[in-house]
Amino acid sequence: MTASALPIAERIGRLGTETAFAVSAEAAAWQAQGHTVYPFHLGDMDLATPENIVEAAFRALRDGKTGYCPNAGIMPLREALADDVGASHGLALGPQNVAIEPGGKPVIGKFILALMDPGCEVLYPSPGYPIYESQIEFHGGVALPYGYVEGEKNFELDFEALEEKVSPRTRLLIFNDLQNPTGAESSPAELERVAVFALRHDLAVLCDEAYWDIRYSGRSHSLASLPGMAARCLILYTFSKKFAMTGWRLGAAVGPAAIVEVIAKLNVNDESCSNHFVQYGALEGLTGDQSGPREIVRVLKERRDACVGLLNQIPGVSCFTPAATFYLFPNFTGLMERKGLATYDELRRAALEETGVSFCTRLHFGRALPGEEERYVRFAYSGIPVPLIEEGLSKLKAWAEV
Amino acid sequence: MTASALPIAERIGRLGTETAFAVSAEAAAWQAQGHTVYPFHLGDMDLATPENIVEAAFRALRDGKTGYCPNAGIMPLREALADDVGASHGLALGPQNVAIEPGGKPVIGKFILALMDPGCEVLYPSPGYPIYESQIEFHGGVALPYGYVEGEKNFELDFEALEEKVSPRTRLLIFNDLQNPTGAESSPAELERVAVFALRHDLAVLCDEAYWDIRYSGRSHSLASLPGMAARCLILYTFSKKFAMTGWRLGAAVGPAAIVEVIAKLNVNDESCSNHFVQYGALEGLTGDQSGPREIVRVLKERRDACVGLLNQIPGVSCFTPAATFYLFPNFTGLMERKGLATYDELRRAALEETGVSFCTRLHFGRALPGEEERYVRFAYSGIPVPLIEEGLSKLKAWAEV
Repeated sequence: MTASALPIAERIGRLGTETAFAVSAEAAAWQAQGHTVYPFHLGDMDLATPENIVEAAFRALRDGKTGYCPNAGIMPLREALADDVGASHGLALGPQNVAIEPGGKPVIGKFILALMDPGCEVLYPSPGYPIYESQIEFHGGVALPYGYVEGEKNFELDFEALEEKVSPRTRLLIFNDLQNPTGAESSPAELERVAVFALRHDLAVLCDEAYWDIRYSGRSHSLASLPGMAARCLILYTFSKKFAMTGWRLGAAVGPAAIVEVIAKLNVNDESCSNHFVQYGALEGLTGDQSGPREIVRVLKERRDACVGLLNQIPGVSCFTPAATFYLFPNFTGLMERKGLATYDELRRAALEETGVSFCTRLHFGRALPGEEERYVRFAYSGIPVPLIEEGLSKLKAWAEV
Repeated sequence: MTASALPIAERIGRLGTETAFAVSAEAAAWQAQGHTVYPFHLGDMDLATPENIVEAAFRALRDGKTGYCPNAGIMPLREALADDVGASHGLALGPQNVAIEPGGKPVIGKFILALMDPGCEVLYPSPGYPIYESQIEFHGGVALPYGYVEGEKNFELDFEALEEKVSPRTRLLIFNDLQNPTGAESSPAELERVAVFALRHDLAVLCDEAYWDIRYSGRSHSLASLPGMAARCLILYTFSKKFAMTGWRLGAAVGPAAIVEVIAKLNVNDESCSNHFVQYGALEGLTGDQSGPREIVRVLKERRDACVGLLNQIPGVSCFTPAATFYLFPNFTGLMERKGLATYDELRRAALEETGVSFCTRLHFGRALPGEEERYVRFAYSGIPVPLIEEGLSKLKAWAEV
């Protein structure tokens, strides 16, 4: 039964995907041929979920939390998350501001379905998580990319692009501070500027804060905390990174009660509710012993330091040291020139075949923008331990030096 | 933070819900006042997930199956489900025909997104699961309801309604054999007639087979098994009922590889994947010891028999004995006349307040169709044990007899 007699809907032609999966497949194929692969392409984590979370989930499973739960999630988890996000954001939040979701990702599509009419323009980051553009166009919106530029210590928002692209038809802004793939983090001044921009143009904002708790120094700040912004921001929260729970599929939409109510109604239609007993695991994560998430950040920081240090020793490569996320977005322009590599694909394949180092490039996070001349790749260090980081990047360095 | 400055998208005005949740809330409020409630309104189950499934899921959790898995699900589960559905349906299926989903419900929306263009007409059952109509209209389709009529031994499809409503703009048919709420089951002749109809009008069919394995005699038959139908049917499969796993949220779309591929691409966009370790629990359910699901069906059969027997003793009530599902759809027309109750809501509230018996009515499963004169309610016996069935229905009988 492989043939289909059915014509596919026109909208499917506008549906994008994560092309990074193809990189995973290529790396796996190369490894299957007997080669060593250094997996810097993965956005997944090789770290264990903290034991207290595993035990709490299993206790709930044993206690019979196997039936449906409310569409917006179990009340104690909504309350605990409202407290957690409220405290970290300086906002007065209650359970009415929280809808539990089967992952952080569902919040992207539901934000768009709830607030975007067909034909509306939506500003979104490129490079950025490719699902933004896909969901905007799939549901009939007009996707307007904005980029980042190299600042002194990290990437900065290309504010000119925002100002240039916004129009009276622009209704939504997707804003991923602590950004994938660049590791960019807005300064207080930049956040202030984005808030003024959103207010002036009356935009609804998705604050994708998936990496909020993955940080190594300082503290995270949210656009939603700025005056007047809470009423127009929906926060994407996820348990995936902080608690190494990517495969558990649990996240939340946090924002104005009226929007959260719409999201919960979408839950009724799309999946009824998120896994019941998993929510008790997440509740323990938020309210129980915090040594698990602290250890995760400690391990990731060691990896970041190893990675940044070694990348900056490679001729033709320069790399910032982001204080958050588990991504680096080094500039490979010089290396590509040295090696006579013209395209991202040539670079990626040559690096894999000559050194085993596997990574995604800028093009896995959206089309290059007009005038974009520098070449960047993304190194994720969430799925590779320090010894392999050192081994892989030493090989990359030796290859670059030839 | 309760105010929102954001205008909601127009499409949200077309989004429906499950009004049955309001019945649950009313029953809970009545109970909280100190009254006994007999919960026949629930579509959820009060039975435990079989122990071998619980253990297999926990083993996988302990084994570190906590990272992402493939978008369409883990390969062994896709293979096992292809074997299971292939054997029960007489179809040659492989993993390419299976996409694992976070529940059966997501298959409804994804079927519509994959195959329905805006403006297309979709035939769907009313009374029926209310999410069909909601998702059709939400995504810009035209919802055409068809009903059921009382036959000799069970409800039968109102074939005249199908013939009358279908037009050249009709592209999709939603077909829920072993039906919620009626308990209707198509005879081989009726299935044959539907197949001819679907082929003649070149329709894509969603075969919602959520209750396939919840049956007490005979065996289930699928529209997808008839000649020429496999290429145009997408089967909604769920682990929820057979294995009492409603709150685990796991199901699947089973059908032509080209459609399953589109569904998997929707998975990439909507939720990445379903919970990783839960899939190992489901795998054990399909391939391990089958005494658990057998026991679930044994318990449900006792309840069905108790329920049907007692309902038919109530003056003004008549009820079929469906061989499948855990729903009954008794005709309450006579009882309403006896008691002088004009509306479904009066009936429901009077029964709750006078007897504690709580149930949904026909109107929780769609608007009444033109010419529909008989009055029906839905009794679900998946969440109430036999002693409470007997107690509650005895009270209902005494009340009816006054």
